[in-house]
Amino acid sequence: MEKDAVRELLEKVREGRCSVEEAMLQMKRKPFEDLGYAKVDHHRGVRQGACEVIFGQNKTPEEVEGIVKNMMENGASNILVTRFSKEGAEYLRGRIPFDYYERPRLAIANPAERQKVGSIVVASGGTSDMPVCEEAALTAEAMGNRVTRVYDVGVAGLHRLLSNLEPFLSARAVVVAAGMEGALASVVGGLVDCPVIAVPTSVGYGASFGGLSALLSMLNSCASGVSVVNIDNGFGAGYLASMINKMGENGR
Amino acid sequence: MEKDAVRELLEKVREGRCSVEEAMLQMKRKPFEDLGYAKVDHHRGVRQGACEVIFGQNKTPEEVEGIVKNMMENGASNILVTRFSKEGAEYLRGRIPFDYYERPRLAIANPAERQKVGSIVVASGGTSDMPVCEEAALTAEAMGNRVTRVYDVGVAGLHRLLSNLEPFLSARAVVVAAGMEGALASVVGGLVDCPVIAVPTSVGYGASFGGLSALLSMLNSCASGVSVVNIDNGFGAGYLASMINKMGENGR
Amino acid sequence: MEKDAVRELLEKVREGRCSVEEAMLQMKRKPFEDLGYAKVDHHRGVRQGACEVIFGQNKTPEEVEGIVKNMMENGASNILVTRFSKEGAEYLRGRIPFDYYERPRLAIANPAERQKVGSIVVASGGTSDMPVCEEAALTAEAMGNRVTRVYDVGVAGLHRLLSNLEPFLSARAVVVAAGMEGALASVVGGLVDCPVIAVPTSVGYGASFGGLSALLSMLNSCASGVSVVNIDNGFGAGYLASMINKMGENGR
Amino acid sequence: MEKDAVRELLEKVREGRCSVEEAMLQMKRKPFEDLGYAKVDHHRGVRQGACEVIFGQNKTPEEVEGIVKNMMENGASNILVTRFSKEGAEYLRGRIPFDYYERPRLAIANPAERQKVGSIVVASGGTSDMPVCEEAALTAEAMGNRVTRVYDVGVAGLHRLLSNLEPFLSARAVVVAAGMEGALASVVGGLVDCPVIAVPTSVGYGASFGGLSALLSMLNSCASGVSVVNIDNGFGAGYLASMINKMGENGR
Amino acid sequence: MEKDAVRELLEKVREGRCSVEEAMLQMKRKPFEDLGYAKVDHHRGVRQGACEVIFGQNKTPEEVEGIVKNMMENGASNILVTRFSKEGAEYLRGRIPFDYYERPRLAIANPAERQKVGSIVVASGGTSDMPVCEEAALTAEAMGNRVTRVYDVGVAGLHRLLSNLEPFLSARAVVVAAGMEGALASVVGGLVDCPVIAVPTSVGYGASFGGLSALLSMLNSCASGVSVVNIDNGFGAGYLASMINKMGENGR
Amino acid sequence: MEKDAVRELLEKVREGRCSVEEAMLQMKRKPFEDLGYAKVDHHRGVRQGACEVIFGQNKTPEEVEGIVKNMMENGASNILVTRFSKEGAEYLRGRIPFDYYERPRLAIANPAERQKVGSIVVASGGTSDMPVCEEAALTAEAMGNRVTRVYDVGVAGLHRLLSNLEPFLSARAVVVAAGMEGALASVVGGLVDCPVIAVPTSVGYGASFGGLSALLSMLNSCASGVSVVNIDNGFGAGYLASMINKMGENGR
Amino acid sequence: MEKDAVRELLEKVREGRCSVEEAMLQMKRKPFEDLGYAKVDHHRGVRQGACEVIFGQNKTPEEVEGIVKNMMENGASNILVTRFSKEGAEYLRGRIPFDYYERPRLAIANPAERQKVGSIVVASGGTSDMPVCEEAALTAEAMGNRVTRVYDVGVAGLHRLLSNLEPFLSARAVVVAAGMEGALASVVGGLVDCPVIAVPTSVGYGASFGGLSALLSMLNSCASGVSVVNIDNGFGAGYLASMINKMGENGR
Amino acid sequence: MEKDAVRELLEKVREGRCSVEEAMLQMKRKPFEDLGYAKVDHHRGVRQGACEVIFGQNKTPEEVEGIVKNMMENGASNILVTRFSKEGAEYLRGRIPFDYYERPRLAIANPAERQKVGSIVVASGGTSDMPVCEEAALTAEAMGNRVTRVYDVGVAGLHRLLSNLEPFLSARAVVVAAGMEGALASVVGGLVDCPVIAVPTSVGYGASFGGLSALLSMLNSCASGVSVVNIDNGFGAGYLASMINKMGENGR
Repeated sequence: MEKDAVRELLEKVREGRCSVEEAMLQMKRKPFEDLGYAKVDHHRGVRQGACEVIFGQNKTPEEVEGIVKNMMENGASNILVTRFSKEGAEYLRGRIPFDYYERPRLAIANPAERQKVGSIVVASGGTSDMPVCEEAALTAEAMGNRVTRVYDVGVAGLHRLLSNLEPFLSARAVVVAAGMEGALASVVGGLVDCPVIAVPTSVGYGASFGGLSALLSMLNSCASGVSVVNIDNGFGAGYLASMINKMGENGR
Repeated sequence: MEKDAVRELLEKVREGRCSVEEAMLQMKRKPFEDLGYAKVDHHRGVRQGACEVIFGQNKTPEEVEGIVKNMMENGASNILVTRFSKEGAEYLRGRIPFDYYERPRLAIANPAERQKVGSIVVASGGTSDMPVCEEAALTAEAMGNRVTRVYDVGVAGLHRLLSNLEPFLSARAVVVAAGMEGALASVVGGLVDCPVIAVPTSVGYGASFGGLSALLSMLNSCASGVSVVNIDNGFGAGYLASMINKMGENGR
Repeated sequence: MEKDAVRELLEKVREGRCSVEEAMLQMKRKPFEDLGYAKVDHHRGVRQGACEVIFGQNKTPEEVEGIVKNMMENGASNILVTRFSKEGAEYLRGRIPFDYYERPRLAIANPAERQKVGSIVVASGGTSDMPVCEEAALTAEAMGNRVTRVYDVGVAGLHRLLSNLEPFLSARAVVVAAGMEGALASVVGGLVDCPVIAVPTSVGYGASFGGLSALLSMLNSCASGVSVVNIDNGFGAGYLASMINKMGENGR
Repeated sequence: MEKDAVRELLEKVREGRCSVEEAMLQMKRKPFEDLGYAKVDHHRGVRQGACEVIFGQNKTPEEVEGIVKNMMENGASNILVTRFSKEGAEYLRGRIPFDYYERPRLAIANPAERQKVGSIVVASGGTSDMPVCEEAALTAEAMGNRVTRVYDVGVAGLHRLLSNLEPFLSARAVVVAAGMEGALASVVGGLVDCPVIAVPTSVGYGASFGGLSALLSMLNSCASGVSVVNIDNGFGAGYLASMINKMGENGR
Repeated sequence: MEKDAVRELLEKVREGRCSVEEAMLQMKRKPFEDLGYAKVDHHRGVRQGACEVIFGQNKTPEEVEGIVKNMMENGASNILVTRFSKEGAEYLRGRIPFDYYERPRLAIANPAERQKVGSIVVASGGTSDMPVCEEAALTAEAMGNRVTRVYDVGVAGLHRLLSNLEPFLSARAVVVAAGMEGALASVVGGLVDCPVIAVPTSVGYGASFGGLSALLSMLNSCASGVSVVNIDNGFGAGYLASMINKMGENGR
Repeated sequence: MEKDAVRELLEKVREGRCSVEEAMLQMKRKPFEDLGYAKVDHHRGVRQGACEVIFGQNKTPEEVEGIVKNMMENGASNILVTRFSKEGAEYLRGRIPFDYYERPRLAIANPAERQKVGSIVVASGGTSDMPVCEEAALTAEAMGNRVTRVYDVGVAGLHRLLSNLEPFLSARAVVVAAGMEGALASVVGGLVDCPVIAVPTSVGYGASFGGLSALLSMLNSCASGVSVVNIDNGFGAGYLASMINKMGENGR
Repeated sequence: MEKDAVRELLEKVREGRCSVEEAMLQMKRKPFEDLGYAKVDHHRGVRQGACEVIFGQNKTPEEVEGIVKNMMENGASNILVTRFSKEGAEYLRGRIPFDYYERPRLAIANPAERQKVGSIVVASGGTSDMPVCEEAALTAEAMGNRVTRVYDVGVAGLHRLLSNLEPFLSARAVVVAAGMEGALASVVGGLVDCPVIAVPTSVGYGASFGGLSALLSMLNSCASGVSVVNIDNGFGAGYLASMINKMGENGR
Repeated sequence: MEKDAVRELLEKVREGRCSVEEAMLQMKRKPFEDLGYAKVDHHRGVRQGACEVIFGQNKTPEEVEGIVKNMMENGASNILVTRFSKEGAEYLRGRIPFDYYERPRLAIANPAERQKVGSIVVASGGTSDMPVCEEAALTAEAMGNRVTRVYDVGVAGLHRLLSNLEPFLSARAVVVAAGMEGALASVVGGLVDCPVIAVPTSVGYGASFGGLSALLSMLNSCASGVSVVNIDNGFGAGYLASMINKMGENGR
């Protein structure tokens, strides 16, 4: 409960318009619903300006179904289910409305058209980073952002990036996904004047150590304005890019 | 050179107002100055909306002096020199105007008053994280942002954070610096609806492994909207927070 | 052999009630049984107040069967077989009486009803940590402890935890299982006044490095009273919680 | 504020014995004091049954002095200052009453005699682990526990341990500090029937990697009832041992 | 070619009993045979007192067959093929004579009875370490050593070890295989007066990190006389134990 | 566009032979083709003296087909597709002409006979390193280099290497692939006077940690003239060896 | 107490030649002396055939003095004090007789001439490994072994090793100390037919990571008969070499 | 001894022009000199086309002096002493002729003017990488190569590199030294068509982990033709660049 609500409630109690018991109850009403295996958070939209996201990994399709349905009953749309297996998606088919994207293993339940604003660029070092990029781009689009994809512009062929600079220069936020040496984040960071969200990917082999190489590289970026999310966390990057893009859109 | 400048130059060549040799020269003119030991970048202000920053570590005081003077001659003020030793600051004393902050080892050369806008919160888990926090806060202030400091609100005494929530709720960007288990970033990330920039600090001992523990913790944050910069990189966090805050201020 | 037994034996030898050979023999009698592939420890119940536990991983179903039967012949009940595969459980079906729990891959052989005392809370950061939590909870219950489960109360939605504080405040021991950034242990540790046993889980991806992130986070907890067991070691946490809860029950 | 206090406050508001403003104020009163550089937590004693502890590392002596004085004014005694340098102790001399222990770098401010109850054993693998052991032992004693020290009983000379088993067998909690291979924790864990708190120490060289070897060893202990705290964290072990010992003393 | 052979050859050349060309040839004759995919080393028996061993991993069954046959033609027996898959063994069936041991995945080709001398103990911490132990024991036996197996004597139940000390005390070399915390090597090392060869095993989970925990533990052993081989390298331990045992048998 | 082309273009503009618009266009013409999922780089041959290589991992066979065809249309031959699965190769069968090598999982599309010059040695420590060696050797051959293979000459049987020294002594570049302890690179580096390119392989087990052991070993080589490429990166080693061999062939 | 002693004691009790109390006492008599800070082990000579060794690191000179004196009173000579600082040695000067070796920081207290038997080789990769080598060589000499030093024979100049092979070929045990890539152990292991004890040293920089590179390299040695001790553990290597050499000398 | 020398020697023996003893002796003559603490290698110049280099770290100034003098007596000039302390250099002053460079801590003993051929570029990411760059550049110059330095062209300000491309395009080998994220190597690797030798430097802080970040980044370079030497190993890079440059100069 927010401050003003507390004040109002206290006023009501003083004026006898609300009993003590009732006030106790209201102060305890949980802003989430308990399904046993999960506590669905209905206030997050209010608190954070975006609907709940379901981390699909390690959850059974039945659990995902239960959570989605509960959210839909509370009015949610464009509900993201990340790291959701193809098998899970097949189970859901017919039970709830959703779009499924196989490469990023992303489901968007109760999909609804949304006006898209501002400008986010999602760039990748190589073709192999596409699943992570798509997770970022689809997340941002589902949250109402205009997204430009610029793929396969890794630093070993710099002219490919330099020939595609325009969308970068007008973006409010750039998501850069790269594996191996992850150098693209620094190069882009040095060229643009908006926040760069770097996503190390697990693409590579040998001394890439599952994305560690790109992760360290990006954390040590000598360009200012670059920050990093977890390896392969396309969702997190898209979500953060949306936050920043919206701030530029609406002020605050 | 930007696109319009190229067009204009080409027009001049066509009209004979500019010789081919001259055009060649202009297309090669470097947007930086070469001091031998460093190439000072005068276009960054244009390119990125903020003046150059000098990474003071491993540079001699004489080198720092040279770079700062060159920048001042090009009109720069509030020039940040990060990781700059007390001895270096003593050398500079009297040679150039600057403020020096000992705990964050930060110098601000050619300091100039600046209007401060918007709202950034810099929060710390414990008193020991203060040097990193101050680097972030002073950087953001030097770049013209209003900053609120909320220190020593680590998660082991949650009520200290919960009693100080107000500045967080109205911020456009929050910087969270924490060492040890770095849990504060996730907790704050779950409470606010603006980007959270997490700075792992090297505070701790034993299995904190010089900040690795907090770094991993923050990268794995289960809260959305959290991104991470390098261990102890207060400057990077402050710079990025400024970018975001300004975007909310000015739109784009 | 304990001290008093030695004294008694010596008295018998002195009084001629026991030959030297016989005394030699008794002093060598092994408090365990050798099955060739395993040495079953029948004294542990005496020595540690709890029956033997079988680490099921890397053992053949036949070996597990042999050990369990040997223990049952020595009067044991509620024998735990941890990390025991579903296939193993199918083999045992009909050969010995037991309950099997699929998610935590735990078998309880020769199950017997037991009075449950005191109060242990088992809490999880997310739904995905449930297998580890259940291993802890079932272990504690099999050892005669009253257990309250509080699942999916991770720090990114702090209100879910704060609305469920009551069982924590009256617990004698709390088990906290969390993956990713593992911050829940510190937050709970700062709220309760009983020992907190933190179990890092391997839930997560990328820089969680199979539970390393949560492990380091928990080891560096800034809350007092928190200690840590191995990644995914729900059994160890439940066992230790039982030890502590019983100490509060019985004194000593 | 606890539940009953909220109810009472609401009753007062209803009966007009307390104004809305006053109620708002009371609900916001912070259970800690803000010294600017630190937020001193006066409720921890209530919340957790033990006074605040000051982590001395990275704090100036003046800051420590300020926090200690503030706590003393609120009635605290036996205030622990861990990882406190000898120089810091010299500064405090004469300003506040305290005992200082050089090897564990521990200060106990406003020391007060306390009745000691129950039984805790603090054991070490080698002479070099003594600083960590003493931090644990002194912490436990300051919190009112009876402590038996059993030092230099590492597993390479097992008879030294086996000849000193008696205190272990009657303890309610055992703290085992060991560096190098850290095997003592497992051996002790297999011999006693009370919780064993393992403290890896940074004693060793080469592949001990600053305590990592002992840490991993202890986390992988095959003995049940063993949990682990951070490398060199004698304080944490002593604090937790006290919690457990008191639970056996008082029930709950 | 050994020194004496060189001298003899030179004498022959001087005396004209051997042409220069012939001498050149003899000095170049390779002490191995080149099969294209492998260079089979026929001098190793001379050079190191033991026949060649074939590392079966990553080799095709056909390659193994080729190498074994080549060695048999040169008179070798008891040829060890380590890390050899069950499928590979099935392929060999009928083509060459051999014994196959499934758990240690070890084949002994052209097996021959051999007199066994001296005394080696192979001990394990738990039942799960058996494959590694058997690789060590079978290797030592194939090389003509008397081996005593003492399994499942991990330190968490110390009495199991103490009741089985006799074979240890009369051994010339002890192989200790243990996973998890690997403490058994130190305990045994402190009890015996012969070399202890420690083999960390990959048995365990979580923070055992595939045997790293046991490896570090064993390298940091505080007992003298302990040395370590690679994780799961039962063959290497058995081979080395044989070398030492034979040295005690034959002097040198 | 290279310098001379710019000059020529400017001359044309000045002379009116080329309009400003046209010039703008030419300066923007991309030296690569955008297939959507990939940007095929047609200038690399010019820029780097070798055709494009396709990293086959994580690409669908259809994507590989598309890229190869696009390159063939631009005149490329001997197009390498590395880390290309057998399934992928089967898909391509009949669609484009290519040779496929199963062990190194390498396809060479549009194969063309090429004159082979100079001398490169590819050496391996053991039979198991062959896939990596073959990737290096085939790459170098496809680029027109004469290659000598010297396999299974690991340092544990030094005479095998010493008997095969001749090709090493006349080589212009040596590729050394070795797993486990990777010592061969240092030994060869001390014997030859040309660059040695060390390729750590992931062959081994236990503490080889997927090639980390060999990687560190090679990076720390005490022999001069040794440099290292990524674990299992046979292609990179062959490519670099070709560069060096050609430099010795053609001068520059 | 050994088996025979127990039997004899029991006989005495039966015959009344020894009271029960006395027997109890004898069975408890500790085979070590407790100095408070250390438990000096007087039985180790009996148990392990060598006198106690004092790990000097982290011990005060006074503690070392106390332990040495206690041992001398029990008849010990050639007492090794490893990792003992020069300052410590200066303190001891005049208080007890000893030799001090500065580079290996080794003291040998109560030195006594000893007949030297057999043959141990101590070899080093480079001049910088000498401190570790000397610790090994002096330890072995103090224990009565004949030692040949062969220094600076690293693999980058193989002929230096090949020209010095003779002592290796007649040794009963070889200690190989090497830093950086640690390849010498494998090369020597392939040439000799006696056990090779590899000591990784912390010599190197960068990716040697304090000896980790050499450690992994040696653990992965493809030569049989090689085992490894801790980084820089010259003492351990010398002690183990002595054990093996003596076994060859005396049989057993 | 080379093959032809052996043949010649044999001929002499046959013809009686050389006794067997003499031949034995000649075949054993060591191509190095043994100073006790070091074996100076006089054949390396022959074997590898460059004089010996002395690794100065961990050697006493007296040892360095001895080795240098021995080499000078054998006619060597431009003898490199790497990682040589300023104090060591002061000791040498007046004893032998040499130049000393403080930042790279490099001495060049018996310096001699040398004709410089070909073209090597040494590039750095930032001013702080200069010590490593200078070690590389001075090494290459001492070995007779023409070197162009291009410093402070890190990827965060790409135009600084693009404006300085010319020397890169005409180089035969490029050394790239960079710390932090080490991205420069990949960018340069994509622009040039000669071998790129990447040197990770330990410049940076936090998650640069002493150069590990740059090391991994460079090993994972997506540009072909890039290989890597040890962290901060400027000497190794310069030496290898010289090898390659000379191959282009002289063919082979």
